[in-house]
Amino acid sequence: ISCGISKLRKPKLLENWNTRPGRRAFRSFHLARNVRIDHFGFDENLTFQQRYLIADQHWKKDNGPMLFYTGNEGDITWFCNNTGFMWDVAEELGAMLVFAEHRYYGESLPFGNESFSDSKHLNYLTSEQALADFAVLIEHLKGSIVGAQFSPVIAVGGSYGGMLAAWLRMKYPHVVVGALAASAPIWQFGDLVPCGTYFSIVTNDFKKSGKGCSESIRNSWNAINSLSSTDAGLQWLSSAFHLCSPLKNLQDAAILKSWLAETWVNLAMVDYPYEADFLQPLPAWPIQVVCKFLTNPSLPDKQLLQNVFQAVNVYYNYSGEASCFDMSQTATKNLGQMGWYYQACTEMVMPMCTDGVNDMFEPQKWDFDALSNECFKLWGVRPRPSWILSMYGGKNISSHSNIIFSNGGLDPWSAGGVTQNISESLMAIVIPDGAHHLDLRSRHPCDPSSVQQARALETRSMKQWIEGYYFRAHKEQDQKRSRGAKGRADLNCLNPLTESCCQSHFQ
Amino acid sequence: ISCGISKLRKPKLLENWNTRPGRRAFRSFHLARNVRIDHFGFDENLTFQQRYLIADQHWKKDNGPMLFYTGNEGDITWFCNNTGFMWDVAEELGAMLVFAEHRYYGESLPFGNESFSDSKHLNYLTSEQALADFAVLIEHLKGSIVGAQFSPVIAVGGSYGGMLAAWLRMKYPHVVVGALAASAPIWQFGDLVPCGTYFSIVTNDFKKSGKGCSESIRNSWNAINSLSSTDAGLQWLSSAFHLCSPLKNLQDAAILKSWLAETWVNLAMVDYPYEADFLQPLPAWPIQVVCKFLTNPSLPDKQLLQNVFQAVNVYYNYSGEASCFDMSQTATKNLGQMGWYYQACTEMVMPMCTDGVNDMFEPQKWDFDALSNECFKLWGVRPRPSWILSMYGGKNISSHSNIIFSNGGLDPWSAGGVTQNISESLMAIVIPDGAHHLDLRSRHPCDPSSVQQARALETRSMKQWIEGYYFRAHKEQDQKRSRGAKGRADLNCLNPLTESCCQSHFQ
Repeated sequence: ISCGISKLRKPKLLENWNTRPGRRAFRSFHLARNVRIDHFGFDENLTFQQRYLIADQHWKKDNGPMLFYTGNEGDITWFCNNTGFMWDVAEELGAMLVFAEHRYYGESLPFGNESFSDSKHLNYLTSEQALADFAVLIEHLKGSIVGAQFSPVIAVGGSYGGMLAAWLRMKYPHVVVGALAASAPIWQFGDLVPCGTYFSIVTNDFKKSGKGCSESIRNSWNAINSLSSTDAGLQWLSSAFHLCSPLKNLQDAAILKSWLAETWVNLAMVDYPYEADFLQPLPAWPIQVVCKFLTNPSLPDKQLLQNVFQAVNVYYNYSGEASCFDMSQTATKNLGQMGWYYQACTEMVMPMCTDGVNDMFEPQKWDFDALSNECFKLWGVRPRPSWILSMYGGKNISSHSNIIFSNGGLDPWSAGGVTQNISESLMAIVIPDGAHHLDLRSRHPCDPSSVQQARALETRSMKQWIEGYYFRAHKEQDQKRSRGAKGRADLNCLNPLTESCCQSHFQ
Repeated sequence: ISCGISKLRKPKLLENWNTRPGRRAFRSFHLARNVRIDHFGFDENLTFQQRYLIADQHWKKDNGPMLFYTGNEGDITWFCNNTGFMWDVAEELGAMLVFAEHRYYGESLPFGNESFSDSKHLNYLTSEQALADFAVLIEHLKGSIVGAQFSPVIAVGGSYGGMLAAWLRMKYPHVVVGALAASAPIWQFGDLVPCGTYFSIVTNDFKKSGKGCSESIRNSWNAINSLSSTDAGLQWLSSAFHLCSPLKNLQDAAILKSWLAETWVNLAMVDYPYEADFLQPLPAWPIQVVCKFLTNPSLPDKQLLQNVFQAVNVYYNYSGEASCFDMSQTATKNLGQMGWYYQACTEMVMPMCTDGVNDMFEPQKWDFDALSNECFKLWGVRPRPSWILSMYGGKNISSHSNIIFSNGGLDPWSAGGVTQNISESLMAIVIPDGAHHLDLRSRHPCDPSSVQQARALETRSMKQWIEGYYFRAHKEQDQKRSRGAKGRADLNCLNPLTESCCQSHFQ
């Protein structure tokens, strides 16, 4: 079963994932194993079922490499379906593919339906626990799959999964020989990057996708503000935007604006050069399609907003099947909203802000205290914004090695990404025409050459890491052999200070 | 106040540690700060007071380096007093000294008297939490001490503290530029090293310290077994060994044997070339002194055991003040026995075994199940022997850098230490005449040349790490300056793939 997605192979193929070998190009397995709920303490001894997918059709059974997708905040089959790059290079690398689900997402719920019930049950939803899950899963696979004992493993991930891939290499370099961290905003924390860049990249995408486009959106906020000051206006907005639940007050109008803003952001993330279904089913270069409706920013409020509706209709109703819009759902249900909200309320504090000048959004300062209070209300926890920096080093990561950070120039998340080489083995790849981890998607005839080149570079690096690993492994074996059966006392005598230690101490 | 120990300065000076600057050679401070009890979860929000000591008399205030002792299983003032090496090199390096206490030891008890009450309270006693304590403490110090913001920090530690020093560099390389891990048995786990080497090193120490010495000890076990089969024999043993509580049965006799075995092991650890007081006050080369009483292994049981008593009397009664021997205390009370027993029952599972042939002990196989059951009885927890390997990489640590592993040839813990170079920047130093982290002790006229050379090598490496850090810091500053005020869009265009991205995307 192939899980690479394209125009011809839609997600319904997912249903074929099962524990038996598939009948298509890839033999694949859908598995689960028991993992400790708490890796970092000994009091809580419970385990949970972590799901992972394996495809080994092209794997070279004699310690061929393993590409290991570090699952992020959603159903792993969905990430598997949207990471065609791994499927595309599997044969060339002779690699086994593994997709590991992140705890608290998809089917990997530590406490089943209780997982999100309170802060006690949520206590084990952290990146550190997830990395430990991945590390022990890799060790388990290498220990249990015949011929994989000495397989080099490369971590691959996109977005938060890309952060996890990079961090897995940083924290467990003995487990993975390298990492491809695609669109991983590992620096969207603390004051490492300006909080406004994210939204200015979104704005740039709209600005260059059509005349008047970003200005129309910038003007739409005031139009909504005007209309939402009266009941009639609220009613008009509810009907104009085909909302499932009508707006009742100013608070609802604020939700409408957030929903629109999130829609523009999502469009920037998935501004792919061909028809695709990632967050939503969409046409090629969707922002250009959207912007066709937003050419005149100077229209009267109602006309402007009718155009805005036409624009979001592209995002929410490309299939033409939506009868009304539900503002609580802006993207695919494969993403685990609950879990990510909790993570954003604890470790994943990513400062964001807008000024309405360098971006097309209503000005909004970064307000940590408001977030903290909201988090406490929702989950009974408060975020610790500096912890990720203490844990993963912020910008001070030059002592690590073998990580590729790839970023798309269209992707707002590139604001927090590594876009310049840090060292020879910490490489940055910028894909100017790429949106959110375009490089991880399947090959496509419409791929811009920049993403083709990026993938070629990525593949080349992965081959180098693999070859380096085999080279070192062989050298070590040779060394062991040449040392022969010398005992322990001799080892003590391999002394850099003096050659005479054996006489004085181990005669 | 100096905390380096020598014949002239005995531990009573410790009483002078206080929060005000001292009056002796070193200005020093005794401090504490609030630290999270749980770094890895958000449900438990309590903090505890972590103690640390600072001496900054020789510190170069303009970002001079910091030597940071990663405290191990005991009172930090005691480690401070026994790590004279740091005091000896402070002036040469212009370094600030920091000694940080390990949670659950000394005065750094997360739940006060309740800390050891049950597995709930003990749940936060792990090496991972301790490393996080150190990392955030270093960040706090750099952030709060004027002139320390860009200070390079080097971790220093001995024994378990040496393991922590090495692991701190491995897991938080952005926090410490290097580590001196003295007598750190990071490989005394799983099946990384043979379980019997530890005790065969102890045996070697006795074998070469006097004719008949190790044989006398080997024969002593059967002598005890014979005598302990009768009540009269037990009584004779109790009196011959001056025990505070007389032996009542075979179980007590087994405790006597364990106590003796531990005594021989401790002697091997502290077989220093001069009079010292580490685990106990002892003469120079104490094993040689001990072995003077154990020259004839063929004596009848009672005579042999009377000699064994004379031998242990050297260890427990060098001061001549002991009236009877308490078998529950084999070393200084500065070590936290409770805490270490728990750690040995959870993460720190170090397989040990004896065979009576390659060593002078009664044969005893490594019995994990017995340990596990004992741990469950004591603490309600079971050890996870593979976790340390998953977490810290076992022997697969070559991707790390800037760690010196020093080991003494006389030290049984060298069995689990790194005694061969792993790479240019993961260096092993073997000190043939050294016992347990002799190199960390103060300079002494009786130091063998091997430890002098080791310290010189260690100091040279630390200087290289410090210079390397300053060099990189200056280079980065220059780069930032030469980049000037270029904005974010430009950064996006520094694209390794194509120079033309700016035209297509950021015009």
